[in-house]
Amino acid sequence: MARMVVIYRTPKDVAAFDRHYFEIHVPLAKKIPGLRKYEVSDGPIVMPMGSSDVYRIGTLYFDDLEAIKEAFASPEGQAAGADQRVYAPDDSGVQMFLFDNREV
Amino acid sequence: MARMVVIYRTPKDVAAFDRHYFEIHVPLAKKIPGLRKYEVSDGPIVMPMGSSDVYRIGTLYFDDLEAIKEAFASPEGQAAGADQRVYAPDDSGVQMFLFDNREV
Repeated sequence: MARMVVIYRTPKDVAAFDRHYFEIHVPLAKKIPGLRKYEVSDGPIVMPMGSSDVYRIGTLYFDDLEAIKEAFASPEGQAAGADQRVYAPDDSGVQMFLFDNREV
Repeated sequence: MARMVVIYRTPKDVAAFDRHYFEIHVPLAKKIPGLRKYEVSDGPIVMPMGSSDVYRIGTLYFDDLEAIKEAFASPEGQAAGADQRVYAPDDSGVQMFLFDNREV
């Protein structure tokens, strides 16, 4: 199963970030066609190596990378992407990785 | 279920990295007590935002953060950690995140 992992740095206003993320973004993103599961980090994120300060990680699951591509192109995907740029602008240090996984 | 996500930048010698990762590191890491599942990215990692160049992502699953803490402290965890510093030194840009997840 392919996944989209979104890594958010600690925002200036954590309460405002959470409110926007859970009340607006999650409901919008859950409308994206092809989304199989949506998970968010729960509690502190531990970084054993001195990485940049990360506050929350979202993981969205799709059948494969093609499904993610179609999801991005859909009106619902476009809306969720536009919304993300509101609460986490590209220069906020947000990282996004799309990849397929296999068990070893 | 808690997870450890390890994000590796593209190494200078991709073939040597893969050989070490799959032939030495994965077998070592699979001995870590409490490990429930180990997945690695399969194929290219797409980065829609201009993130740093990432080559591979490993995800290790444990029951909870306490189990990860115990896993790190175990001889098998220490061995896997020492091995990681061989093929991916701390200054190689490797990122590691430990966190609990919940479905939304």
